[in-house]
Amino acid sequence: MSGHVVALCGGVGGAKLAHGLSLALAAEPDSLSIIVNTGDDFRHLGLSIAPDLDSVMYALAGLSDPVRGWGRRDESWRFMEALRGLGGESWFQLGDGDLAVHVERSWRLAQGATLSEVTAHLCRALGITARVLPMSDDPVRTRVLTPEGWLDFQDYFVRRQCQPAVREFMFSGAETARPQPQALAALQRRDLRAIVICPSNPFVSVEPILAVPGIRLALQQAAAPVVAVTPIIGGTAIKGPAAKMMTELGLDVSPAAVARRYAGLVDGFVVDQTDPVPDAQPGVTFVQAATLMSSVEDRLGLARAVLRAADALFA
Amino acid sequence: MSGHVVALCGGVGGAKLAHGLSLALAAEPDSLSIIVNTGDDFRHLGLSIAPDLDSVMYALAGLSDPVRGWGRRDESWRFMEALRGLGGESWFQLGDGDLAVHVERSWRLAQGATLSEVTAHLCRALGITARVLPMSDDPVRTRVLTPEGWLDFQDYFVRRQCQPAVREFMFSGAETARPQPQALAALQRRDLRAIVICPSNPFVSVEPILAVPGIRLALQQAAAPVVAVTPIIGGTAIKGPAAKMMTELGLDVSPAAVARRYAGLVDGFVVDQTDPVPDAQPGVTFVQAATLMSSVEDRLGLARAVLRAADALFA
Repeated sequence: MSGHVVALCGGVGGAKLAHGLSLALAAEPDSLSIIVNTGDDFRHLGLSIAPDLDSVMYALAGLSDPVRGWGRRDESWRFMEALRGLGGESWFQLGDGDLAVHVERSWRLAQGATLSEVTAHLCRALGITARVLPMSDDPVRTRVLTPEGWLDFQDYFVRRQCQPAVREFMFSGAETARPQPQALAALQRRDLRAIVICPSNPFVSVEPILAVPGIRLALQQAAAPVVAVTPIIGGTAIKGPAAKMMTELGLDVSPAAVARRYAGLVDGFVVDQTDPVPDAQPGVTFVQAATLMSSVEDRLGLARAVLRAADALFA
Repeated sequence: MSGHVVALCGGVGGAKLAHGLSLALAAEPDSLSIIVNTGDDFRHLGLSIAPDLDSVMYALAGLSDPVRGWGRRDESWRFMEALRGLGGESWFQLGDGDLAVHVERSWRLAQGATLSEVTAHLCRALGITARVLPMSDDPVRTRVLTPEGWLDFQDYFVRRQCQPAVREFMFSGAETARPQPQALAALQRRDLRAIVICPSNPFVSVEPILAVPGIRLALQQAAAPVVAVTPIIGGTAIKGPAAKMMTELGLDVSPAAVARRYAGLVDGFVVDQTDPVPDAQPGVTFVQAATLMSSVEDRLGLARAVLRAADALFA
C-alpha cells in the first residue's frame, strides 16, 4: 500500500520508530512526515536547544549514541570541562559535536529563519530525506506542576532528574501557537496512509503536539487510521519518566491506560508482544508486536508491523 | 621600585610580555593592569569573540597553546568537524575548549553584563590576579582598507590570511567609545611606575587602544615613563602581519620605524639585543634587551628588562 505516513514523536523512543518508518518507506522517501514535539525546547547559555528535534535528526542520520541513548555517537566533552573550569552552568550536558547543531540553529534563528527552515537545512546537511517538522514555529514550553510549584521542563527533567512528583502539565504558548503549515497539511492529505503516534511519553511528548491548535482535530478528521504504539512494556517505560508520571497521576502503568489517554483519537493501538491484549476499548483495535527496539532491525520490524496494523484498519 | 604598572597589549606577542610582567610583579599581584585591544572583537555564529582578551587570559592562566601560538593548549576540534558536517561557516577555528569562553562570554553579555564584568569573571575563574581590562566596554571595530575596499578585521586577518595589501586602518566606533574606567584610572594613577606598550602590532593592536578617547592623552600626561617594546626583530615580525603591513605602508621594517610611529608618546623603546641601537629620536631612549620570548623564562627576563628601563628613565 502506498500513501503518505505521518509520525508524531518526541525524543529517543519515538525517534527510533521514526527511523524505522524512514527505513520501511525508503523506497518512497517523500512519503514520510515526522511531526516533532518542541515543548522541551529551551534556551540555555544563549543557545536555542531543541532536544527532540535533535534526537530525531540524529536517529535518522545514524548519528545517535547507541549506549547513552541520547546525543551523538563518538561524542567528546571538552567544552563541558572547560565550561566547568569557568564556573559556567553545567547541569545540562552539551557534547562538543552536539554543540555544532545548537550553535548553527541558534545563529540561523537569530538571523530570522524559522525553526522549520533551520530544521530543513540541518536535515539536508545530514542527508535526511524524510520531512522532519517541528509541531510549530511558535514557542510552546512544557511546564510541570510539582509539590514545589511549576517547573520548566528541562529544570524538571534534567536538573531535577524527574525527582519531583508531577500533578499537572501546562503547554505554555500552545493556545496561540500556529501548527507548522506542512505538518498540518500532511495530516490533512487525501492520500494519507497512516498517522503513527510513536512510543513517546504521552504527557510531555505527544500531548504538547496535540495541544497545538488544529492538530488534534486533524487527527480526528484524518483520512487514514491513527495508530499509537505503547511506550509501556511489562508495566514500565523503557526510557524516561512515563511510568513514574502515570503512578503519580494515579493511572495504571499499563498500555491500556495509555490507550485510554488517547481515547477518541486512535483507531489502533500496538502493545508489546509480551503483554496481554488489553480489554476492549470503544473504537480501538489492539494489536501485538515486538515494540522493544534494541537494534535497527527492531526499528524496521516495528515500523512494518505498525504500517500493517494501519493498513488493516483502512480496509 | 614599587608602584603600579600598566601594559597595553594586543594578542599573542603582547600577551607573552603581559604574562612576563605578571610573573615579575607576582609579589604585588595588585600592581599590574593590562589594557587589551578589543578592535579585533567580532560576532561569529552569534557568539561574541574577543581574540586578544582570550590570548591574554590564556597566557596569564598558563593555558596558551605553545605550538600553534593561539588558542588553548590540549585543544580538540570536534565542534568544528561537526559544524563542517552541517555546512556551517568554518573559516574561523573554534576549539572545543575555547568555545566555552565564547559561549560563557556571549551569554553573560546578552544578560546585560559589560565586557569588563565578563572579563573580570573569567579571570577570577581562571585564577588570574592581574587586572585584565578591555580598552573600552563600547564596541570598537578595526577595519582595513585594501585594494578590494574596506574589510572587517577578521575577514582580512583570518579569512583572507592577511593577503590583501593594507592602505589604511579605521577604528569604527572609537570616536564615541568611552575608555574602560579602571583602565583610564590606572593610567592616571599617581603611584604609576611604568606604562608598557607590549610588542604587539602597532597598527591593529596598539593604535586601536590609543584611538579610544582619553587614552593617548593619558599616556602623554602620565606620571611615569612610557616604554614600548619592538615587535620587529631582525627586520621581520615574529608573528603576524606587522612587517608585511609596514612594507605595504611604505615604512622601513625596523624598530626605528615603530619608534617613530610612537613619537611623542614613548620615553623609552626596547629593541632586540641582536639589532643595532637605532639613530637618536627626540625624547626617546633606546635600550637593548632579549625580546624574543620562546620560554616562560624569556617572558620574565624581558619584563624585568622593561621595568629596569622604565625605572632608569624615572630618575
